[in-house]
Amino acid sequence: MSLQRPSGRQPDEMRAVTLEKGVARNAEGSCLVCFGATKVLVTASVETSLPGWRRGQGVGWVTAEYGMLPRSTGTRTRREAAAGKQSGRTQEIQRLIGRSLRAVVDMAALGENQITLDCDVLEADGGTRTAAITGAYVALAEAVRWMAERELVKGTVLRDTVAAVSCGVYRGTPVLDLDYLEDVEAQTDANFVLTGSGRFVEIQGTAEQAPFTRAELESLMSLAEKGIGELTQVQRAALSS
Amino acid sequence: MSLQRPSGRQPDEMRAVTLEKGVARNAEGSCLVCFGATKVLVTASVETSLPGWRRGQGVGWVTAEYGMLPRSTGTRTRREAAAGKQSGRTQEIQRLIGRSLRAVVDMAALGENQITLDCDVLEADGGTRTAAITGAYVALAEAVRWMAERELVKGTVLRDTVAAVSCGVYRGTPVLDLDYLEDVEAQTDANFVLTGSGRFVEIQGTAEQAPFTRAELESLMSLAEKGIGELTQVQRAALSS
Amino acid sequence: MSLQRPSGRQPDEMRAVTLEKGVARNAEGSCLVCFGATKVLVTASVETSLPGWRRGQGVGWVTAEYGMLPRSTGTRTRREAAAGKQSGRTQEIQRLIGRSLRAVVDMAALGENQITLDCDVLEADGGTRTAAITGAYVALAEAVRWMAERELVKGTVLRDTVAAVSCGVYRGTPVLDLDYLEDVEAQTDANFVLTGSGRFVEIQGTAEQAPFTRAELESLMSLAEKGIGELTQVQRAALSS
Amino acid sequence: MSLQRPSGRQPDEMRAVTLEKGVARNAEGSCLVCFGATKVLVTASVETSLPGWRRGQGVGWVTAEYGMLPRSTGTRTRREAAAGKQSGRTQEIQRLIGRSLRAVVDMAALGENQITLDCDVLEADGGTRTAAITGAYVALAEAVRWMAERELVKGTVLRDTVAAVSCGVYRGTPVLDLDYLEDVEAQTDANFVLTGSGRFVEIQGTAEQAPFTRAELESLMSLAEKGIGELTQVQRAALSS
Amino acid sequence: MSLQRPSGRQPDEMRAVTLEKGVARNAEGSCLVCFGATKVLVTASVETSLPGWRRGQGVGWVTAEYGMLPRSTGTRTRREAAAGKQSGRTQEIQRLIGRSLRAVVDMAALGENQITLDCDVLEADGGTRTAAITGAYVALAEAVRWMAERELVKGTVLRDTVAAVSCGVYRGTPVLDLDYLEDVEAQTDANFVLTGSGRFVEIQGTAEQAPFTRAELESLMSLAEKGIGELTQVQRAALSS
Amino acid sequence: MSLQRPSGRQPDEMRAVTLEKGVARNAEGSCLVCFGATKVLVTASVETSLPGWRRGQGVGWVTAEYGMLPRSTGTRTRREAAAGKQSGRTQEIQRLIGRSLRAVVDMAALGENQITLDCDVLEADGGTRTAAITGAYVALAEAVRWMAERELVKGTVLRDTVAAVSCGVYRGTPVLDLDYLEDVEAQTDANFVLTGSGRFVEIQGTAEQAPFTRAELESLMSLAEKGIGELTQVQRAALSS
Repeated sequence: MSLQRPSGRQPDEMRAVTLEKGVARNAEGSCLVCFGATKVLVTASVETSLPGWRRGQGVGWVTAEYGMLPRSTGTRTRREAAAGKQSGRTQEIQRLIGRSLRAVVDMAALGENQITLDCDVLEADGGTRTAAITGAYVALAEAVRWMAERELVKGTVLRDTVAAVSCGVYRGTPVLDLDYLEDVEAQTDANFVLTGSGRFVEIQGTAEQAPFTRAELESLMSLAEKGIGELTQVQRAALSS
Repeated sequence: MSLQRPSGRQPDEMRAVTLEKGVARNAEGSCLVCFGATKVLVTASVETSLPGWRRGQGVGWVTAEYGMLPRSTGTRTRREAAAGKQSGRTQEIQRLIGRSLRAVVDMAALGENQITLDCDVLEADGGTRTAAITGAYVALAEAVRWMAERELVKGTVLRDTVAAVSCGVYRGTPVLDLDYLEDVEAQTDANFVLTGSGRFVEIQGTAEQAPFTRAELESLMSLAEKGIGELTQVQRAALSS
Repeated sequence: MSLQRPSGRQPDEMRAVTLEKGVARNAEGSCLVCFGATKVLVTASVETSLPGWRRGQGVGWVTAEYGMLPRSTGTRTRREAAAGKQSGRTQEIQRLIGRSLRAVVDMAALGENQITLDCDVLEADGGTRTAAITGAYVALAEAVRWMAERELVKGTVLRDTVAAVSCGVYRGTPVLDLDYLEDVEAQTDANFVLTGSGRFVEIQGTAEQAPFTRAELESLMSLAEKGIGELTQVQRAALSS
Repeated sequence: MSLQRPSGRQPDEMRAVTLEKGVARNAEGSCLVCFGATKVLVTASVETSLPGWRRGQGVGWVTAEYGMLPRSTGTRTRREAAAGKQSGRTQEIQRLIGRSLRAVVDMAALGENQITLDCDVLEADGGTRTAAITGAYVALAEAVRWMAERELVKGTVLRDTVAAVSCGVYRGTPVLDLDYLEDVEAQTDANFVLTGSGRFVEIQGTAEQAPFTRAELESLMSLAEKGIGELTQVQRAALSS
Repeated sequence: MSLQRPSGRQPDEMRAVTLEKGVARNAEGSCLVCFGATKVLVTASVETSLPGWRRGQGVGWVTAEYGMLPRSTGTRTRREAAAGKQSGRTQEIQRLIGRSLRAVVDMAALGENQITLDCDVLEADGGTRTAAITGAYVALAEAVRWMAERELVKGTVLRDTVAAVSCGVYRGTPVLDLDYLEDVEAQTDANFVLTGSGRFVEIQGTAEQAPFTRAELESLMSLAEKGIGELTQVQRAALSS
Repeated sequence: MSLQRPSGRQPDEMRAVTLEKGVARNAEGSCLVCFGATKVLVTASVETSLPGWRRGQGVGWVTAEYGMLPRSTGTRTRREAAAGKQSGRTQEIQRLIGRSLRAVVDMAALGENQITLDCDVLEADGGTRTAAITGAYVALAEAVRWMAERELVKGTVLRDTVAAVSCGVYRGTPVLDLDYLEDVEAQTDANFVLTGSGRFVEIQGTAEQAPFTRAELESLMSLAEKGIGELTQVQRAALSS
């Protein structure tokens, strides 16, 4: 008898994923990304100035910020602007998003420009950081195209695509793309960020409740490779539409 | 020769207004409100506990928070959570929204419950605070209905409807519902919050550039009464759908 | 039978108002303003530099800050410097004071200088923001005169005078210049900022408890016009002494 | 040829000192204290509750806060509430004031009550902390009397009087009660807090520029004893008036 | 021709590791841990109360804080207490340390007690977080023994040991236990937290500069398994001494 | 019958004092100082730039920061970086350390360089600030020697040595170098900072519980002179080793 996931999905089955670009009137790039009921709005803002420490080196910078609307969650979460600071979790996530995107950017080709990716979670149902990275790539690509049309970049800025997915061991079975109910219960969960060509950019596995074996980790990696293969297709389709 | 508004509207013409309720899966009430290109997502969160100073009096509380996504604006605005505090403008607006909604709530009927209205601006094109108030009423009404269905309230909570609009003197002519281009240039601008029955809840007029006469103020009031009459119809339609 | 105000005043009667200029040894302009038992010390500080965003445009800037001594109130209020931030109310008030004063200043005549108005409440009995604006005009005028004597300005800096008063509906009757006891109980209250020539700079009316009719608003406006007429006389007398 | 002090005073001569009690309508005790041009407003607030760590021990607490109005100084000082924190100097001073007053209070007689002394500098010309302590004693005594009249205390709360003065070596000569011009230039300066009966509560001597000899320190002590003898008389006169 | 590491080590060779327990007079457990020139002082503090959200469930809590002395680094780093907040990096690290230790703790056996692990870096030469985890286990074990001696715990608290090490691809070769010079230059680096029995608690791999292949990741895992095997021996020796 | 000190020391007897220089691999100067069980790690960091307000005057600057490891104390103290600010006590102490060191520095000889002394308490048993000053002098001297070897200074930077000790009245007897048990109980305690040539740099005496007489203060001064004579010998020995 096989595992029953709360959503009825197969262990290696992603949620329905949609990526809609061009959703923000003001931004140079944008994407509304849905991983099932998780919904994140990403904007890419191009600035022709750089932070002080990065200037004068002929290279650019890509950075990210992350936030959750207070009622994106099942019970209301305190607004970070009202609390007066970003939580450790928020900072961890936005640092992860920034690193993930930078891994596919040719900073010399970008020139002395900065692109800021704002990832705001409208609805949360698990996997907000992986959805954010996947959507941020689309918003970034759109912004880079906008720059290329204005001859603001030198050559090819994006060396590869990048996407992310979470996997975990749920009731003893490795599963792909955890939703909130699975995430809460999973003994182990890991986030994977891979390029379109299948290389690893980030891997973050945590097993606070039950340490995992190397074999389990291998299974999660294989699931991630499958999921990111699919996400890469959806990204390409969204960008070529 | 008559005034040419940037949008081609008549002086007493509102932008296209839409109110869509039920847009947030997790919240007890929600509304996506558009005043032209201004787009605000409002959620209403019901909590069965109150802040300490309000407890034990047999009455409830309604409060609001306001935020702008960093790229809701033409150039990116710094994220308040990253800056570590809410600006004076943000605080002013969220205090205004809270007061406006409380003006139509029977706190005894609400019982010892709190409703928090989170108003997050997805796209800004002028009038974000008036759109927020207008949409917040719809989200609030939906949340109150949710509570009534669960017998969490005692009698009729909402004594009236409430909506808001801005008016201003643009190139010498009083106009209704300023968009961003008009707002920047207006000598005078005023925000009006009125009930569905035509009473004034708030009036905030500012003339940093050119003080206005009482006659001008009277014209703005009349425009506001017209605009809010229309908004009240749209609110009723949204709630009865 | 007529309304009994706690102070025994007539509905259209201001409290005793005094404005004493030149009270701060170090400041270029200063004023101790009393509206009855409300007492505010205002200083005007002239600086020959501007905030970064305002530089190089040939114009000046006027700004204001507001604070209450912890025991200006009936029970001690927490010191904002100890709390680590200014409350939303404080920020709203200091923004209002700044806008009100700027409305009568010719920024080109001021040249690239900044004047900061510090309004510190020594005793509070209602109407602290309107007293602050009224006294700040006197401190500002004194500072401008100080600058003129040193040929630091180009022509006439002050285009008009400006003063402020609050009005409200107290026990059903519109009354002028609310004191604390009236303010707490008033269904509606509004702050009016007018120039000496009778034009409106700001109007902020709030009816959290009982929305008001347009007719009531008209009555409050008329009271404000009367009160500000009187305040303007007191300002002129103070400055010509 | 003798030393010429900027004020023309003799080396062992205090500035004119005035202490006016009962100046704040709302506070249980208050005092406006002037040491020459230095002017500090002190209020004493009685609270019948204690901070958590002090409760249930049958004893009270006395604490102090200190602030300077932004334009109490020759050039405007940034408002600490706007800066978002109290400086190290402010904290040092308010801790000193609190300790000084506590040294003469019988905490058991005070009962489980707290008195907060707010010391706000209206004009600064050197010696603000010593003026604050001297005035705070008067405000405290007035508040204690107010409590005694209401039978809120058990027996004699104040075991002694307390006052403070600064002394320093100015151009080689030990002088009493430094004003701002002397303070800036003094090689050495020390603040002394003594009881009315001539005992030392605090001594803080600093010689950042030129270390001092024990003989110099002895001279400063003698000056302080003389000055505090005089301050004690002024305090007694103020309280018996 | 083989890789030349800056330290002359073999690719799979750890730095000299020392673990000295009982170094802090006041703490219930403590450990001074050195990974080569990296030196971290860890203390374990036992508290018999829990944070509010954890109370009344019959289980305990283990948490960690991390800091670097300002001059533990080659150039002075700003003191976080002076900056007014912990950086995102600090928060990430202390969250990692806490999770890693909790993975081997039986919270029911710990009872309603909290243990806080303070990890302060005295000297930094790469790998501070992995050294901190490895030393924190020793301090934790000492604190648990202290509790057991006082019968404060119920049965066996520690289900396993835990240690951590970083690995990376340095000049194309996977190497074990990166020092600072290697860390700066590595294309890829990963931190591994494993139990003494060889299971994975955390894996955090980052490839900001050059995404890595699955084969490279496998090599790093094998190195980590070897390194942690050695660290586990050193931990056992330290605790049995 | 004579006084019994908790440590068995004579009233005029210092604890065992050790000063070990060169303990921090990265810093230009460093010292591990122990006053009995009190242990402070001091580093001196040389920077060739100055804070803005000090630039362009041909002189240098010396400043200090102070911190306590959370478990340097008997029960854990909250980490200031986590609390988000330095306490008033911390600020007072670091300002004291800075002033004390500056008193013996020839700022012109130092040139436009800054030296920052970081004093971090590893173990606290009373007298942390006096130990910090005494050790900071050694770290500073080592850093100055480092600079002299690189010809970064002009002539003799250190005009004298400086050290510090606390004295107090314990059970009626004046004693030298209070440890924690004595400090808690002492009616009076004073910190003395003296130069090697016997001049006073700082004296801070506090008598919150029982005001002291001039005669008592004289006794404390004599004890301090004795103690600092001994500390000066230990400093010289440490630096010449």
